[in-house]
Amino acid sequence: MDTYSQIVVASRPTGTPTSKNFRVETGPIPAAADGQVLLRTKYLSLDPYMRGRMNDAKSYATPVSIGGIMEGEVVAEVLKSKHPDYRQGDLVQGRIGWRTHAAVEPTDLKRVETGGNPATTALGVLGMPGFTAYSGMKVIGQPKPGETVVVAAASGPVGSLVGQLAQLSGARAIGIAGGPEKCAYMRDELKFDAVIDHRADDMPEALAKSCPDGIDVYFENVGGPIWQAVLPLLNRYARIPACGLIAHYNGPGAAEQDSLSSTMLAMVRRSLLMRGFINTEFVDDHYDDFMRDLIPLVACGHIRYREDIVDGLNNAPEAFIGMLSGRNFGKLLIRVS
Amino acid sequence: MDTYSQIVVASRPTGTPTSKNFRVETGPIPAAADGQVLLRTKYLSLDPYMRGRMNDAKSYATPVSIGGIMEGEVVAEVLKSKHPDYRQGDLVQGRIGWRTHAAVEPTDLKRVETGGNPATTALGVLGMPGFTAYSGMKVIGQPKPGETVVVAAASGPVGSLVGQLAQLSGARAIGIAGGPEKCAYMRDELKFDAVIDHRADDMPEALAKSCPDGIDVYFENVGGPIWQAVLPLLNRYARIPACGLIAHYNGPGAAEQDSLSSTMLAMVRRSLLMRGFINTEFVDDHYDDFMRDLIPLVACGHIRYREDIVDGLNNAPEAFIGMLSGRNFGKLLIRVS
Repeated sequence: MDTYSQIVVASRPTGTPTSKNFRVETGPIPAAADGQVLLRTKYLSLDPYMRGRMNDAKSYATPVSIGGIMEGEVVAEVLKSKHPDYRQGDLVQGRIGWRTHAAVEPTDLKRVETGGNPATTALGVLGMPGFTAYSGMKVIGQPKPGETVVVAAASGPVGSLVGQLAQLSGARAIGIAGGPEKCAYMRDELKFDAVIDHRADDMPEALAKSCPDGIDVYFENVGGPIWQAVLPLLNRYARIPACGLIAHYNGPGAAEQDSLSSTMLAMVRRSLLMRGFINTEFVDDHYDDFMRDLIPLVACGHIRYREDIVDGLNNAPEAFIGMLSGRNFGKLLIRVS
Repeated sequence: MDTYSQIVVASRPTGTPTSKNFRVETGPIPAAADGQVLLRTKYLSLDPYMRGRMNDAKSYATPVSIGGIMEGEVVAEVLKSKHPDYRQGDLVQGRIGWRTHAAVEPTDLKRVETGGNPATTALGVLGMPGFTAYSGMKVIGQPKPGETVVVAAASGPVGSLVGQLAQLSGARAIGIAGGPEKCAYMRDELKFDAVIDHRADDMPEALAKSCPDGIDVYFENVGGPIWQAVLPLLNRYARIPACGLIAHYNGPGAAEQDSLSSTMLAMVRRSLLMRGFINTEFVDDHYDDFMRDLIPLVACGHIRYREDIVDGLNNAPEAFIGMLSGRNFGKLLIRVS
């Protein structure tokens, strides 16, 4: 790979993004100035939050401008260093976006440290998605032995760890995902106590059957019809860490028709706790514990994870669009070089 | 008053209750058996939660059965005692319902203790409504100096204390209520930093103008259009103690049309905390502090309150129905004898 590529936002999507909302741009590989490092991206992480960055709307982060490089975290190799702390061949991670190379000051980079686990885990189970699961459960969910924990998108990088952490706390873990293949994986590999296919017509009934004692923790990363199925089952004092709502990201749709009233009334009548969060707010207090706890569990295979790796930066838009409708199976990564 | 009266649920309301949903029953005054006290009700407290008890629906409490006495807390006088701990003339409070007299074991009664404040305060600022405000703010709202606190139904017993407690914490207090008379009271007597008339066409704009730095605590006891006006103004990390939703109690209506999606997305994007609660869950940890803190503040007039007293138990249904549409002005009480 001798030329540089980057993917920019060509236009703002209305509803589900299409390939026309993205544009591939190519050019010469940049050079590192003094104090900079030249990076070659090895893996780009694709995550649902990126959909929000494509909107021109107020959120916890500013949107990507039209013509701006799509945001995203990568694992990259230092090709050339003009900074005293780095040298050729170092593996780093950072939010440099959807591009093959970048010449940057290393201020916002950190070395990949996965304790002997594969470098890709720095973008998944030992990275932002893993920490989202870990901190949301530790700070907000707080599952207790014998309680029932439900999570959707449960074969994905956040959900799969939520379920396994729930079981490590002595709770029952119920996973929801789309299709028999993901459900089989959750049952056979991740060892969820029960699995629910959200594409099945009887999803609400199947969920109710799997939760005879109700739901004590619902880790919310989906919303829409799954939230509606969860709502009547939530026990008094249930906790709802909410880090994402992939069913709502593409704007008005079936999810938009849901009644606010039933959710609010349930919150009040059952003393529910809902707390939106983004993993970064818990970094100072919990990131060191996360790495200390998780690295050995991942290394010995006690915590399992699955990656869905697509080759080539040019395929990132299509893979990203597919992820928003659940076509990925495991942590979605683009192998860039 | 020589005869006994009680008010029972004649039928379940659909939507707003009407007088036909209630029935007055009369009969001879009961006699106290051994171990019982005969009570004569002095004041009956009418509160929005009672609307929920009229439904045949799962909540934190069981519904009143058809033909059952409407639930409610009273301040009552002991007319005759066949229990060693009580004697004639003692003032007690307890949940004996909408009736003029009751012969009961005193297990669930307690003596009225208001530290020299009027006995009616035991049902208002120094009772359940006051403790709802106090515990919701102390445990969930946690206002800090300089923050902005918004509360609706702000001339009522919960809202008026929420605003005054916010100011005692050094926060700005913004009160919302219906009509110029209530707004004048909140501004001139309660000294809210700003008041908003929710009946004004420009309510959302007026609220936004009064909250130039956004909202840090919204004490939710109303829901509906007020929640929709509050939602866009909530700052990151805002806290929402939610103890009631009077706009939703009468079932589907304008409130039912509101979008769940916008609420859930705001929760996630701004790391909001919403916690439903009922005051009873905080009694063990906070009730003693509440009484110790509030009694002197009420006695010296630093904490103000207002009562709306209606004469005669037979007028309770009409007063209750009026309260659900905001016709009361202050803590609503029925003077029974």
